Amino acid sequence: MNNKNAFYAQSGGVTSVINTSACGVIETARINKQHIGTVFAGYNGIIGALQEELIDTSKESDASIAALRYTPSGAFGSCRYKLKSLQENKREYERLIAVFEAHDIGYFFYNGGGDSADTCLKVSQLAETMGYPIQAIHIPKTVDNDLPITDNCPGFGSVAKYVAVSTREASFDVASMAKTSTKVFIVEVMGRHAGWIAAAGGLASDCLTEIPLIILFPEIEFMRSDFCGRVEQLVQQHGYVSVVVSEGVRDGSGKFLSDQGLTDAFGHAQLGGVAPVVASMVKQDLGYKYHWAVADYLQRAARHIASKTDVEQAYAVGKATVEMALAGENAVMPAIIRKSNDPYQWCIEKAPLHEVANVEKKMPREYITPDGFGITDVCRQYLEPLIQGEDYPPYRKGLPQYVRLKNVLTEKKLHSFEI
Amino acid sequence: MNNKNAFYAQSGGVTSVINTSACGVIETARINKQHIGTVFAGYNGIIGALQEELIDTSKESDASIAALRYTPSGAFGSCRYKLKSLQENKREYERLIAVFEAHDIGYFFYNGGGDSADTCLKVSQLAETMGYPIQAIHIPKTVDNDLPITDNCPGFGSVAKYVAVSTREASFDVASMAKTSTKVFIVEVMGRHAGWIAAAGGLASDCLTEIPLIILFPEIEFMRSDFCGRVEQLVQQHGYVSVVVSEGVRDGSGKFLSDQGLTDAFGHAQLGGVAPVVASMVKQDLGYKYHWAVADYLQRAARHIASKTDVEQAYAVGKATVEMALAGENAVMPAIIRKSNDPYQWCIEKAPLHEVANVEKKMPREYITPDGFGITDVCRQYLEPLIQGEDYPPYRKGLPQYVRLKNVLTEKKLHSFEI
Repeated sequence: MNNKNAFYAQSGGVTSVINTSACGVIETARINKQHIGTVFAGYNGIIGALQEELIDTSKESDASIAALRYTPSGAFGSCRYKLKSLQENKREYERLIAVFEAHDIGYFFYNGGGDSADTCLKVSQLAETMGYPIQAIHIPKTVDNDLPITDNCPGFGSVAKYVAVSTREASFDVASMAKTSTKVFIVEVMGRHAGWIAAAGGLASDCLTEIPLIILFPEIEFMRSDFCGRVEQLVQQHGYVSVVVSEGVRDGSGKFLSDQGLTDAFGHAQLGGVAPVVASMVKQDLGYKYHWAVADYLQRAARHIASKTDVEQAYAVGKATVEMALAGENAVMPAIIRKSNDPYQWCIEKAPLHEVANVEKKMPREYITPDGFGITDVCRQYLEPLIQGEDYPPYRKGLPQYVRLKNVLTEKKLHSFEI
Repeated sequence: MNNKNAFYAQSGGVTSVINTSACGVIETARINKQHIGTVFAGYNGIIGALQEELIDTSKESDASIAALRYTPSGAFGSCRYKLKSLQENKREYERLIAVFEAHDIGYFFYNGGGDSADTCLKVSQLAETMGYPIQAIHIPKTVDNDLPITDNCPGFGSVAKYVAVSTREASFDVASMAKTSTKVFIVEVMGRHAGWIAAAGGLASDCLTEIPLIILFPEIEFMRSDFCGRVEQLVQQHGYVSVVVSEGVRDGSGKFLSDQGLTDAFGHAQLGGVAPVVASMVKQDLGYKYHWAVADYLQRAARHIASKTDVEQAYAVGKATVEMALAGENAVMPAIIRKSNDPYQWCIEKAPLHEVANVEKKMPREYITPDGFGITDVCRQYLEPLIQGEDYPPYRKGLPQYVRLKNVLTEKKLHSFEI
């Protein structure tokens, strides 16, 4: 038998379904034991590989691995650490090879976003550049939904569902209070560079449940007077309005709206969100009573309201990764290909990694209404399938029962390494 | 037949289950048609009574009324409007009587918190004080959980569940990022005067899923050095910590921590939450990377993750209200009486309204750990039953399908009235 071991790592911000992809990888590897050895997971991502901190996933029971399917966060730890280029830091690549060699690793599975795709591409070239045979496959993941080729990125659909559901619920709330109290509700969502998540707020309103909404996209330059004018108009018309604001909204000078140079009474800089800034404008310019929320980690960790479609796709890309590896692929990413909108049909195909790495998928302008405050029908047709279906975790005493793995590190064989 | 009509109104901040109580009232009235006439709902609460804007709920289908059971917010509109005393504003009471008389109303059902209980008590005395026969029954509702006698207040259990679930999920997230990124996560929750909701965050951690948590209660004077010391200790021990902070936390001088006199670059006062203030302290004193969230309306509107226990109790108090009315009761409130913790058993009994109005149930000090940063076992025993069970709403295209009523106003018979 000459079945190589695999290295799997989680990279960057975690999601409510990145562990679902891990589940897909490990379960598929387990049923292909004759062709693939142990799956080692990087403890805290790629740092685990560099420091030879390899979690032996064979120590986990089948039940624990199955529970990864419904457990949010990164079960092995993630990190924000980008490998430099081979020219800039050859030392790190040599170390990776030493660790891979010491643990008979022939497969590199990297679960992350755009930066990670770039790292994965570099690793895929180690055979050519440094003579170490390895098959590197990138597993797509990012709530930002900004990877190219794939229809969407696992993790995004569940955040989208959370934002759509929460915006609808809070809008019902403010509608009932508007007569004598709050008239403007503002919720801040993630998306530093792209408005995909903010756009999902637009799904809160549909033909059966219309809601007066304003969406503030990072793609659209923020104009205070236009915004306040629209708020005024919708409040006059409906009595209230909900605003979904992306954390990445910028003003005319290109400055983040959240970066308002706030200081507290002692002159210390204050760490702001954008929601309170927008709320202040509503208060100052229109005098309306407002409420604001900042969803932050709650949105990307909200496994309790995950999209079933997202869960299925997250698992599918994990499964396909192992299958592609066993088929001899290198430098690819399993991508979700949309075949139809309604019913939503999709399949997994391989995408060349060099076409994925360092390419950012932007929101097309035609997904945003001409006035810049809403989503168009074509955007809705794209987004709607991604939030379909519920996939509830099991509960015990009123709380979801998420798994914590044992995370047993395999014995080190090398000297330590400073990163 | 001499069956009087009923007036029902929603008061104050809405919840994810106040409509469930409305559903209990209307469905129970409908099956007692021989004894009770039409249920009129106040359009925007008590203001609807004063302005003779009475929603005729008999115009709504059985299916729509049944859908109230799983629809958050206040379906008839709520308001923040407290009737003054009879001495201070006799005019309003005379108007109420005129409206009640014009529409043959003999039952007054008021669904709210402490202030509303006081209003309801005043209305219950109209027979005595102003010669108008009416039976007034208060239906408990408030996420603040501060009404006396009743085991808990419908609305609270669902917020508690949301906070516990969200805190657990976000804690899993920060745990996976802590190695190279965020080490401190802060979530701000409601509760201006009492720490019940913040305490629910403590449920996120239990014997099967331990999580390093700090809870900041409004009952405990905030000491920056103690807090930062505890953060430091838990980060050293576990690598990360989650902080659940009540919006009502105050410093040694009694000032709200959120009221930090923030100003923006133009010197305008900034509308802060307490979470960013606490985050700033962590940054300044310890230098840790943090993330913060403010749940705001998301928590009290989150019907998608409502507590089944809460839903059942909200319905039960609505149902009991009509039954008590038909039994001839006046000036009472259906209260939830706990009979045992495990299994959680409860029943509904009537509480005298004069013992409810203007009495605030505080968190007992023994519910908070001696260091002021956590919940005790006795607190856990109290809280745990309240978040039991899930009660999911129906979904369509990935979104919960909440009902909007037609809200047909009955014809006015009186002149208009200025409030």
